[in-house]
Amino acid sequence: MFQEMNKRIELLGLIPVIKIRNAQQAVQVGKALLAGGINAAEVCFRVNADVENRDAALQNIADGIAALRKTYPDMLVGAGTVINSSLAQKAILAGAQFIVAPGFNPDTVDYCIKKNVPVYPGVSSASEIEQALSRNLTLVKFFPVEALGGVKTLETFQKAFPVLKFMPSGGINSENVGKYMQSDAVAAVGGSWMVRSSLIEAEKWDEIVTLSEEAEKAMLGFEFAHLGINYKNEKECKKGTQDFAVFGFKERETPISWFCGNNNTEAFELMKQNGRGKNGHIGILVYSIERAMEYLKPFGYSLVPETIQWCGEPEKSAMFFVYLTKDIAGFDIHLKRK
Amino acid sequence: MFQEMNKRIELLGLIPVIKIRNAQQAVQVGKALLAGGINAAEVCFRVNADVENRDAALQNIADGIAALRKTYPDMLVGAGTVINSSLAQKAILAGAQFIVAPGFNPDTVDYCIKKNVPVYPGVSSASEIEQALSRNLTLVKFFPVEALGGVKTLETFQKAFPVLKFMPSGGINSENVGKYMQSDAVAAVGGSWMVRSSLIEAEKWDEIVTLSEEAEKAMLGFEFAHLGINYKNEKECKKGTQDFAVFGFKERETPISWFCGNNNTEAFELMKQNGRGKNGHIGILVYSIERAMEYLKPFGYSLVPETIQWCGEPEKSAMFFVYLTKDIAGFDIHLKRK
Amino acid sequence: MFQEMNKRIELLGLIPVIKIRNAQQAVQVGKALLAGGINAAEVCFRVNADVENRDAALQNIADGIAALRKTYPDMLVGAGTVINSSLAQKAILAGAQFIVAPGFNPDTVDYCIKKNVPVYPGVSSASEIEQALSRNLTLVKFFPVEALGGVKTLETFQKAFPVLKFMPSGGINSENVGKYMQSDAVAAVGGSWMVRSSLIEAEKWDEIVTLSEEAEKAMLGFEFAHLGINYKNEKECKKGTQDFAVFGFKERETPISWFCGNNNTEAFELMKQNGRGKNGHIGILVYSIERAMEYLKPFGYSLVPETIQWCGEPEKSAMFFVYLTKDIAGFDIHLKRK
Repeated sequence: MFQEMNKRIELLGLIPVIKIRNAQQAVQVGKALLAGGINAAEVCFRVNADVENRDAALQNIADGIAALRKTYPDMLVGAGTVINSSLAQKAILAGAQFIVAPGFNPDTVDYCIKKNVPVYPGVSSASEIEQALSRNLTLVKFFPVEALGGVKTLETFQKAFPVLKFMPSGGINSENVGKYMQSDAVAAVGGSWMVRSSLIEAEKWDEIVTLSEEAEKAMLGFEFAHLGINYKNEKECKKGTQDFAVFGFKERETPISWFCGNNNTEAFELMKQNGRGKNGHIGILVYSIERAMEYLKPFGYSLVPETIQWCGEPEKSAMFFVYLTKDIAGFDIHLKRK
Repeated sequence: MFQEMNKRIELLGLIPVIKIRNAQQAVQVGKALLAGGINAAEVCFRVNADVENRDAALQNIADGIAALRKTYPDMLVGAGTVINSSLAQKAILAGAQFIVAPGFNPDTVDYCIKKNVPVYPGVSSASEIEQALSRNLTLVKFFPVEALGGVKTLETFQKAFPVLKFMPSGGINSENVGKYMQSDAVAAVGGSWMVRSSLIEAEKWDEIVTLSEEAEKAMLGFEFAHLGINYKNEKECKKGTQDFAVFGFKERETPISWFCGNNNTEAFELMKQNGRGKNGHIGILVYSIERAMEYLKPFGYSLVPETIQWCGEPEKSAMFFVYLTKDIAGFDIHLKRK
Repeated sequence: MFQEMNKRIELLGLIPVIKIRNAQQAVQVGKALLAGGINAAEVCFRVNADVENRDAALQNIADGIAALRKTYPDMLVGAGTVINSSLAQKAILAGAQFIVAPGFNPDTVDYCIKKNVPVYPGVSSASEIEQALSRNLTLVKFFPVEALGGVKTLETFQKAFPVLKFMPSGGINSENVGKYMQSDAVAAVGGSWMVRSSLIEAEKWDEIVTLSEEAEKAMLGFEFAHLGINYKNEKECKKGTQDFAVFGFKERETPISWFCGNNNTEAFELMKQNGRGKNGHIGILVYSIERAMEYLKPFGYSLVPETIQWCGEPEKSAMFFVYLTKDIAGFDIHLKRK
């Protein structure tokens, strides 16, 4: 159920969980997230314990959702901490595109299904997962993931329930997000580490931009793979490996190239002939080519269809390798899945 | 809901979870707890697997609750392991002042709410927390806490549900209780480490007294902070710091005093003038001044209102500092929150 | 409830969790398990996410259960991952002798109870345990156990619910199975480590046999305890200890023998007189004598009733010690509980 939204969330990969008090804060945070390259937000119905008029506070949060939707219509905006169906109604009225809850409340879930609004209830046990499956949900939140064993726990659950994917949250940060992005059990992660309340309340928008950039990049896992150098022919190329050997880089042959490197890093790929790029190419590693393209699109990058290699069955599995349409300083760029 | 009882439990801080078989044992354990300075007990409806007449065994436990209530009317006595509404009824009839269960059984909870008896169902997932919140419960048991990540997990949940506080149990002992008492997510802890069944069955009441004292003090976190020494004037005081410097104690100035110490411990506070106490003062650290006062009251201590300092907003936040009305050997005593 | 099946499962101790796609695979796996000394299987209703006709796939699994039952009528065959009552119906029709689910779905459980087919729903929280107890279930699955703190968590739960025993799964393997078998909270363990899908799909039946043998033995915990040597009389025996002292083995006396050993291992028992066995005896340690006998029966071993020693009350507690009816090379064999 909700396949289209599931796919959109999976392509985004990272859903910031934000705690705001009003529309003005919501829009400011949205602006900072976008500036940091993140095009999604889950606005939480969380109200501090000492707030006196809780209903008004919740309505202000709903207004924040509405303002965010209106100001940034291309951003994916959901509602979080939706712990009952009346909050779900409030969120949907405000324009929330999806509904998230920390736990599984059948009322909330059934209400959203009836309204045909994608809902991602939190689960943390097999019993709750069975309740989700009985409603044909195939993507669920998992909270609090780090307290419950992290990515290993998700994979244990996925082994028992192969149709399921998770949107974990609770303790994820730039340090450990990579482990999650490498797991097939994870569709996307949720987290507040780039939008901490203290930053929002102190209006430190620049810091939110910086942390968002860092979070997005940690989530994508961008990493330099190698520099590709073009040689005229196989003989020249073979000779090239000797130039690199002077620096202690050992060579490894492939049908089209020689890799040179040491210590598990092969920083150079010497192309035997017809290498791509005016000045060669740069290989960049990512956790998911699909997600990386989603991020790179606004920067004018597209993929070169005839260069796609797949992990498994073409079109059905994940991409393993692809060249981009745009070069940097004469170097063609290709992505490669870690 | 149940604000008054919630507050009483929070002030007590530690609720021993006791497994007794009859009224006589219950009263003996109660006596030992009181002698150890603990004024509360949760009597559990736990019956060994090999007991043949379970109904009679459960009734004997209820009789234990009744006996405890009658013998020690000032003690707070609740019932634990109340896994269904018929046990809740039995407990309430016996005079239990609050009802605790390891898990969340809506029947039990709704029955207690109907009877207006404070109920603290156990939760261990966001789904269960949402069920509690839907009934306006703001204090819940959390079991088994150590197996599920300890205090860090509680704080993750409280971040998602700011109105909630927890009464964790399952693996708490004198070694780790301090971590719990320092967390705002914790109202009180439950535990059996000072009233183990083996001790009760062997009638080792003295050992229960000793362990209870130790547990209560570990929970309060009493720790020597510094000795305050009174000087006649600022000049004398400044000179005093030089006397301490001979022993390698470095000085740090405050508006009213000089602290002297080393290695992160400032064992001496030299008062510039008008220092409290005939012979000076003794500063004692605690996790919570409110809880410490609850414990100290029976020993004749009260707080000196005009000396109170608050962590945040006066009267609404926790106390940070206060002098007591009674001195020890000419030394005034003040408490300070860790 | 379901005492007879509970007991059978507890005697087996290890229930392999197998993922097959059809009857032919089911029978092959069953054959390999039996060859490895394991006389039970839980056939899972797990279908990969990319399977198109899920209903047909589920029916094929049910056919696997039926084939296994027919081919190996003495094997205990259950159904796993039974996440709703319609799957339970399918499993029971196919002849499944017990029903297991990762989580607690009241519909599934109540359906099986109505049909009087033993059901072992998965629990992972006190709330779910309370639901099981309210239906008089005293044996439940616990999943995923390693992610939730392992055997320590089970024991915490059993302390709160003394009537309950667990069938844990999720992360158990030959390395850690011993910890589970030593716990009174564990009736049996579930696991796939000896029947991994990759082995089944690659038809590596021999490897499954080897891994099954290894798993069964790790579960039973067979370990050499000591060699018993018969002496004619006490004097000869005492002299014997001096022979061993030459090798640095220190002696320890019991009423009937001297143990000799070092470094916590007492490899020799010198019998003062009338020692059993033509050539002496061999002591073997196991986690459970009852389970070991279940495994040894097909090899022609029985126990010698008059040699039984009990952990507690005779006939009601577990056996602590027993001699077997058959010797090896003139050495009588006795088992001893670790």
